[in-house]
Amino acid sequence: MADSAVVEPRLLRGLRDLLPDQMRARQQMIDTIRGVYESYGFVPLGTPSLEYLDVLTGSAGQEANQSLFRVRNPDRTEREQTEDPTERLGLRFDLTVPLARVIAQYPNLPRPFRRYQVASVFRADKPDPGRYREFTQFDIDSVGVESDLADTEIIAVACDALSALNVGPYQVRFSSRRVLNLLLEFAEVREPITLRWPKGTTARHMADESGTRAARDVFRVLDKLDKVGFERVKLELTAGYQDESGDMIPGLGLEDSQVERIRAFLAVEGERRDDVLRQLRELFSGLPDATAEIDGLARISDRLGGLGYAEDRVRLDLSIARGLAYYTGPVFEARLMEAPQYGSVFGGGRYDDLVTRFLGQRIPATGGSMGVDRLLAALVEKERIRLVPSTAQVLVTTLDPGLTDEYLAIAGELRRAGIRTEPFLGKPGYGQSKKQFRYADQCRVPISVVLGGDEKQAGVVIVKQMDVGRQLTQQAGDRAAWLEMRPGEIRVPRADLVAAVRERLRLLGE
Amino acid sequence: MADSAVVEPRLLRGLRDLLPDQMRARQQMIDTIRGVYESYGFVPLGTPSLEYLDVLTGSAGQEANQSLFRVRNPDRTEREQTEDPTERLGLRFDLTVPLARVIAQYPNLPRPFRRYQVASVFRADKPDPGRYREFTQFDIDSVGVESDLADTEIIAVACDALSALNVGPYQVRFSSRRVLNLLLEFAEVREPITLRWPKGTTARHMADESGTRAARDVFRVLDKLDKVGFERVKLELTAGYQDESGDMIPGLGLEDSQVERIRAFLAVEGERRDDVLRQLRELFSGLPDATAEIDGLARISDRLGGLGYAEDRVRLDLSIARGLAYYTGPVFEARLMEAPQYGSVFGGGRYDDLVTRFLGQRIPATGGSMGVDRLLAALVEKERIRLVPSTAQVLVTTLDPGLTDEYLAIAGELRRAGIRTEPFLGKPGYGQSKKQFRYADQCRVPISVVLGGDEKQAGVVIVKQMDVGRQLTQQAGDRAAWLEMRPGEIRVPRADLVAAVRERLRLLGE
Repeated sequence: MADSAVVEPRLLRGLRDLLPDQMRARQQMIDTIRGVYESYGFVPLGTPSLEYLDVLTGSAGQEANQSLFRVRNPDRTEREQTEDPTERLGLRFDLTVPLARVIAQYPNLPRPFRRYQVASVFRADKPDPGRYREFTQFDIDSVGVESDLADTEIIAVACDALSALNVGPYQVRFSSRRVLNLLLEFAEVREPITLRWPKGTTARHMADESGTRAARDVFRVLDKLDKVGFERVKLELTAGYQDESGDMIPGLGLEDSQVERIRAFLAVEGERRDDVLRQLRELFSGLPDATAEIDGLARISDRLGGLGYAEDRVRLDLSIARGLAYYTGPVFEARLMEAPQYGSVFGGGRYDDLVTRFLGQRIPATGGSMGVDRLLAALVEKERIRLVPSTAQVLVTTLDPGLTDEYLAIAGELRRAGIRTEPFLGKPGYGQSKKQFRYADQCRVPISVVLGGDEKQAGVVIVKQMDVGRQLTQQAGDRAAWLEMRPGEIRVPRADLVAAVRERLRLLGE
Repeated sequence: MADSAVVEPRLLRGLRDLLPDQMRARQQMIDTIRGVYESYGFVPLGTPSLEYLDVLTGSAGQEANQSLFRVRNPDRTEREQTEDPTERLGLRFDLTVPLARVIAQYPNLPRPFRRYQVASVFRADKPDPGRYREFTQFDIDSVGVESDLADTEIIAVACDALSALNVGPYQVRFSSRRVLNLLLEFAEVREPITLRWPKGTTARHMADESGTRAARDVFRVLDKLDKVGFERVKLELTAGYQDESGDMIPGLGLEDSQVERIRAFLAVEGERRDDVLRQLRELFSGLPDATAEIDGLARISDRLGGLGYAEDRVRLDLSIARGLAYYTGPVFEARLMEAPQYGSVFGGGRYDDLVTRFLGQRIPATGGSMGVDRLLAALVEKERIRLVPSTAQVLVTTLDPGLTDEYLAIAGELRRAGIRTEPFLGKPGYGQSKKQFRYADQCRVPISVVLGGDEKQAGVVIVKQMDVGRQLTQQAGDRAAWLEMRPGEIRVPRADLVAAVRERLRLLGE
């Protein structure tokens, strides 16, 4: 062990291995989501993990971004990479920028281009518990569609995916980022917002640094609402205040009448989408631009209603636009009602500036991102997903080395019947039975098949239901006892093995 | 367009995007392989793309390896990384080293640990056509099993995966790396081979730098056999020679009698495994160690025969041991008989030194790697896989904007019937019909559904089989003509839509 050449097996903090139980559950989730996305005709896209740094950040030399993992370009010397920023490489930090690059690079792709991508993304930020430096994103986007049909579809497909994942009750809330423009107009905050694409950021994942100063400041303050409450927000919108620690929080200098209008907007809410729309129409009745905008939200709401997405799972909630102010049109996010502490498990919106950094022109786009890791953690906590470290449904024990061919034949027979089966490949022997059952137990394989010389002669096999043993053990408090007791065992004629195993699995719901 | 802030959309050479047609075919292959591996009870593992450099290379400071992409450690300054080689990071270049790290890092994993992993790996080498710097590996390994049952199982599961992939005729060839030790003994090449784990290399993917000089040199020369022929190999084993370009090729100084023995070994071959085993027993009859070794190969052969893996797809071929000399026991590789030029599409063997670099002790392991990219390229060339850029089976055209809700309802109805359906989300309108059909054609969606005001009133829909149009077009030589001609169209009552589409898809084999 104390070899000087021995390397310590370890990972950079913030990175992690996904052991089989985690990996399996995640894979099943991804398959389910993929199935739903493909049922809508979305197509898969693959892009490399590595991109040029200026592609990622929006312009060469722009490297303040601490989130990026830098990669050395193998085709250039260190010096060449220092001198020419367009030669630098990094790992992708989202799947939106690579999509934008693909749209710009392949002008002959069909339009609309409706793609999904599930892949690792990388962030070099300081890791926190539950926040990793490499994690999976599952994105879905429609590029090239101006119509809010595309936004409606993204909301519908997200609902269908969450339903298929059996996440329990969930709620997708939507709004439009343009409602905030109307609010500024309504509250007579004079500067209109002209959203520019922020350098080194992306719509979906980084904070907004764009817009004119007035708009940005108002949104920044409104974003604190849930945390600090309206009274402090009001102070910050007007004259400013001094907080507990003595810090001066500057005010934006709005009039009381302006704040009243903002307060009236913040009060627009309701369980029924029609109700929210009605209030909004009333509130903004004096604004000429409001009708078209509210009609758009009504269209999304009506279409979703027509398709069966009722109020219980799709709400019109104007407050979400505050948190997603960097989008350019409809915005949406989904929460699990049983696990609200996990926050948004799906989020997105329209971002028509996607490809601007490459083409210098706007291309309409809308889409969202499913947080696979977050969803999995929530579903495991709520016991909606069992983490099982095996794929095998049956372990064929290998008690008699002389019967090895028979064990392999049994495994093949079960497999041909569609039953996932593993012969025990470790040490065979009657003396190894405890060890073999412990292995089945550790991997949570539900059924073991046992065949010794006696059984072979009698033309039978033993089918052992592992959880019966586990239950008895828990009662007896002795983990090893059941191995001797042979509970949950049935002897069946060798010819009936497949049928017997299949019936057991059916009863177990496997 | 000529905005100075515009970034050129591009990729580092050797990297590539996988557009939907490629990505879809690859995903289907991966699903198929995964299904077979899981039917054997292999479990999925996930590891990060980033590893510490010394974990990858086997010891700190060992960085001659040009294949590695270097990544800057975000937790350390440049200087700290220069001074302390154990702080340096790189991208994984295979999935074997991460498996070894996991085995060393999690001592409580079940044994045997039978895992598969499908993931991107990275090589910074100069790219060639068809050779990429990021590509997919699909590995399967059994760790902790000494028995050749594990090797047998890897050969069987590889066969089953290739059969499930519908690759046409294939051949898995196996041998044992230890047969080469017997050859050295037989040819009286005196030094015994003591294989040491080569630093900075891995068993599966990099050239051998280990073994004693004599063994290594003999194998290096034998490896040229297929390229230069036996006469030149003979010269290099004995006195050396001068080649066409005038270069001196030094000889190893073997005697003619030794070369005769090597020639006799190279002549051992046959279509039947039993026949090869018989010749080998005869040839090595004077060697005391040979019996156990040949018995091992016979056991693998017999077990495979018993399970139905006959001579047509599993051969015992001693020549493959020459190319895979860095393994420590049984070795195997698979080729497609229809596409031999693609070389080995699956390869692997036993490598009991896997974890030595971390634990300083040996752990038995065997496994192989499926070349997903290579397989896909071969299957596409042989027209065994069609590359289709859509997932949708049906496009619902949107001719009348007033019927949008109806179009969405139709799409939902078809989807609920399990038919992947996309409503056209681009510009609607009767004047857009050509454009919409062209979109369906470009994406190769097999069926379009058409519903205008007249049809709506008549209570019917039109189901249009797209390839009829394509065929007629090819005959007519006019790509646009069929759009007017309405070939391949049937009108069905609105209520019969799902049944009609399903029947069409069945006829099309979709």
